[in-house]
Amino acid sequence: MNNHFGLERLIGHDFSNKALLTQALTHRSFGSTNNERLEFLGDGVLNFIVASQLYLKFPKLDEGDLSRLRAHLVKEPTLGEIALTLNIGDALKLGEGELKSGGWRRPSVLADALEAMIGAVFLDAGFAAAEGVVIKLFTPLIEKIDPKAIGKDPKSLLQEYLQSKKIDVPTYEVLAIEGEAHCQTFRVECRVAKFNIVTQGEGTSRRAAEQQAAELANQEIAAQSK
Amino acid sequence: MNNHFGLERLIGHDFSNKALLTQALTHRSFGSTNNERLEFLGDGVLNFIVASQLYLKFPKLDEGDLSRLRAHLVKEPTLGEIALTLNIGDALKLGEGELKSGGWRRPSVLADALEAMIGAVFLDAGFAAAEGVVIKLFTPLIEKIDPKAIGKDPKSLLQEYLQSKKIDVPTYEVLAIEGEAHCQTFRVECRVAKFNIVTQGEGTSRRAAEQQAAELANQEIAAQSK
Repeated sequence: MNNHFGLERLIGHDFSNKALLTQALTHRSFGSTNNERLEFLGDGVLNFIVASQLYLKFPKLDEGDLSRLRAHLVKEPTLGEIALTLNIGDALKLGEGELKSGGWRRPSVLADALEAMIGAVFLDAGFAAAEGVVIKLFTPLIEKIDPKAIGKDPKSLLQEYLQSKKIDVPTYEVLAIEGEAHCQTFRVECRVAKFNIVTQGEGTSRRAAEQQAAELANQEIAAQSK
Repeated sequence: MNNHFGLERLIGHDFSNKALLTQALTHRSFGSTNNERLEFLGDGVLNFIVASQLYLKFPKLDEGDLSRLRAHLVKEPTLGEIALTLNIGDALKLGEGELKSGGWRRPSVLADALEAMIGAVFLDAGFAAAEGVVIKLFTPLIEKIDPKAIGKDPKSLLQEYLQSKKIDVPTYEVLAIEGEAHCQTFRVECRVAKFNIVTQGEGTSRRAAEQQAAELANQEIAAQSK
């Protein structure tokens, strides 16, 4: 059994059952006793605890905004970054192939192990212990989250930005529809007159094409304001 | 404030803060203080508690099977049925339009209110209380769940059924691919020689077409064995 004092200190939980922690750090490439079931459990408890923290911190946000914030906080790249700060990669048990191909630094492997660890804490000591670990790891992220920006689609972001500056909302125009009925491609133009911005987007629906055009307009605005 | 003694008795939780229960039973059509945020919270805690119950009850199932079982237990029709047994419809606060259009019997409305109630229990009395309610409501369903059957795709079900009968696995053959490269339609034949079953499926991918053909084969087998 490995010692993981450092890791336990960083997450703020001292495991009674050290085998649970070891299992959480064991990738499926290492053997049949691995972290996949713990990851299922940990994903659930993590999602819920983050949801409840957001619910309490943002009493005015509706459920759509709360969902978006949660999705941002529990997505793989975010979890992978937290896992990096905990040096989970160094503690992982990987099969030889995964070791050679650098599995210990792959965000998906790291994120899974982090979720599995949170599931292991829940099994080891119950909900309050898991909540304590999640709060410790995620509070820095929740504190600096901007509920207005994260996860919104480009059209909404563009519109809200322009409205906040009291500038006319953008206009969207379909320039072309190509292809047969059930697999059409739309080309849409987005125009922000005030900034002399004209962008084009393409997609398999009018909405998708508009979003792409809006995203490019957002990028131009960001570039202009630098 | 309405009295909901019956409902509280059925779910096994006596609210300290009755306003939370009332809010959980208030549809958005009724007003701005409604159950949508509570539903967000309740969805999270329900998903996790069901996940943890399945984790404990089925120590041999992998995370894919656990996910499928959970999806089956927390899907809208299942929640709607539980809500019916609790007579949640009678306790709902709905706007006039929703009342007239029968919102009190719509599965989505009922399912949302049930999730919101579970979220309200969590806020009212913490995780253990919410866990108690979920266990009370879902244990009958979890007890009778068949982990082998639920949520599996038709191809897997067909193959496993045939293997259990020591019958040769089905063969799949692509009969036709039509349309342009990025919007093709596949037609696939599924053949179960032993039962003289030949079915055809169509889909936008080979896999989708195979699944449809397998589903039809499963239906024929079920019809033959009646």
